[in-house]
Amino acid sequence: MTDEFSLIGKYFIYDDEGRLSVPNGDDCAVFGCPPGTETAVTTDSLVEGVHFFRDTSPGSLGIKAAEVNLSDLAAMGAEPFCIFLSLVLPSPDESFIIPFAEALRSDLSRRNAFLAGGNMSRGPLSITVTALGRLPLGTAVRRVGAAEGDIIAATGTLGAAALAVEDTMSGKVTVDRPSWEEARRRLERPEARIEEGIALRGLAHSMLDISDGISSDISHLLRCGLGAVINLEQLPFSPALSALPEERKIDLAVAGGGDYELLLTMSEESFREAIKIPVLQRTGLTQIGRITGSGKAEYLLRGVPREVPDGWNHFRH
Amino acid sequence: MTDEFSLIGKYFIYDDEGRLSVPNGDDCAVFGCPPGTETAVTTDSLVEGVHFFRDTSPGSLGIKAAEVNLSDLAAMGAEPFCIFLSLVLPSPDESFIIPFAEALRSDLSRRNAFLAGGNMSRGPLSITVTALGRLPLGTAVRRVGAAEGDIIAATGTLGAAALAVEDTMSGKVTVDRPSWEEARRRLERPEARIEEGIALRGLAHSMLDISDGISSDISHLLRCGLGAVINLEQLPFSPALSALPEERKIDLAVAGGGDYELLLTMSEESFREAIKIPVLQRTGLTQIGRITGSGKAEYLLRGVPREVPDGWNHFRH
Repeated sequence: MTDEFSLIGKYFIYDDEGRLSVPNGDDCAVFGCPPGTETAVTTDSLVEGVHFFRDTSPGSLGIKAAEVNLSDLAAMGAEPFCIFLSLVLPSPDESFIIPFAEALRSDLSRRNAFLAGGNMSRGPLSITVTALGRLPLGTAVRRVGAAEGDIIAATGTLGAAALAVEDTMSGKVTVDRPSWEEARRRLERPEARIEEGIALRGLAHSMLDISDGISSDISHLLRCGLGAVINLEQLPFSPALSALPEERKIDLAVAGGGDYELLLTMSEESFREAIKIPVLQRTGLTQIGRITGSGKAEYLLRGVPREVPDGWNHFRH
Repeated sequence: MTDEFSLIGKYFIYDDEGRLSVPNGDDCAVFGCPPGTETAVTTDSLVEGVHFFRDTSPGSLGIKAAEVNLSDLAAMGAEPFCIFLSLVLPSPDESFIIPFAEALRSDLSRRNAFLAGGNMSRGPLSITVTALGRLPLGTAVRRVGAAEGDIIAATGTLGAAALAVEDTMSGKVTVDRPSWEEARRRLERPEARIEEGIALRGLAHSMLDISDGISSDISHLLRCGLGAVINLEQLPFSPALSALPEERKIDLAVAGGGDYELLLTMSEESFREAIKIPVLQRTGLTQIGRITGSGKAEYLLRGVPREVPDGWNHFRH
């Protein structure tokens, strides 16, 4: 009979290559911390119907559960070490568990990380991951640290994941097939900007990952009277949006979450240095605005103020 | 309007007394690891209707969510450091959140631990905690390590939480009022055996916390052909069971989970030493059997073999 222990043993416990002093399968995983490093920890849940559509494949969920957490590590400039998984499932359905576990394992392996522990229980489908990363002592890039005059920049491209959410919810696909596939891929298989985050250590003054949309997340960078001007025409729009009207492109790119790009502030000098770094050239690093002393975020389209929608926030939708 | 950020800021972010180098509220919490120590990490979920009854008070849930995880730290001999919380709630109901958060905070504070990060989302009620503890390098008490001839011992008393589950489910309370209150208290406010676990470092050969019942959990200590004899009349029955028939007392104490006592093996010499330690005298440490070479767990009642029910295991109930 399929039970919790045999499922865990079969699909979720594997060799950690000596990185744990007490491996997965005991009451706790135990490990040391290399001298001169610190540990960064974050946790995030994916709940069916809230963070993913019911028809999302188990493989995509395995990847997404890992990557949305690795994205928080990326936003500190940390390197992934290991994750812990709490899987709540209506039933011990191997047609879910096998592709989920395989996709998770292969995604973590690509990130040089591994599953160090977890648990499984019965209940409405939800997936909680706690991710641990490491970084050299004192190098964490925090949310606080922006200075007036800083350039505001974003990695990669924006708006594709939000397009996938909107069109799926309305039941009407508004772009051509390749754009739609790109949009769904960005939504279902987000890619944490790990190498980009590491490259930005020592250059970015402040940083976070855009999970709820710039218009919601920017507020986390603006403390102590700081403000921001975002130039909407400078946003790095996803190619998946290219055929859409400008107004919709802007709304998706500024208020849509789910792309898991990094939003950061840095001096002009650091920005010039950063855009020469190969991984940032590959992914893209785009100036989208400036930190001001205004105490609020302002949005301009070719110099003219424009209202933008709020970003995603649980318990408001 | 009540939203996720203001709720988190109001009830879940508080002073960590300098124990984090990047505090709660950033993308990750960041901290160093004192030289000569290792970190122990565990995660566990509480799902409504599976791990707790619908009428459990928010305060009890706050305590239980922490303690069931601290119990896994205790089972390694680790000292609590901090926890991460994922709270999935149907709605941002402050009449739930305030007592939950207050009870959690005060429980953690009593344990010299604190909430270092987390997230909140909409969905069917479930609570996932990841707990981090610390212990001196190389001192973790693992599940493996039992030796033939070891004494098997349990801390505290057994069966009260299982009594509360059984009688609540059957709708018929079978004990007097003080016993019933004690049983509910053990179920709803389990007490991780932290100090006991620390005291057992260097003495126990193997250890775990009894979450699913001895008859289920003992198998985790029996690797490589080891077996066990459990003398059922020696079980440290909870006082809440005292008026029950012996047969039922035994079933509750041997197969009932939820008391979160420690189950461990040690040499006779270490056992004699352990029972002199004040915290173990206070809590109780009872010999209940012996490790054998039989490859299986055997249960004897005054020398006569007796069948025992299986312990709790998700996906089998």
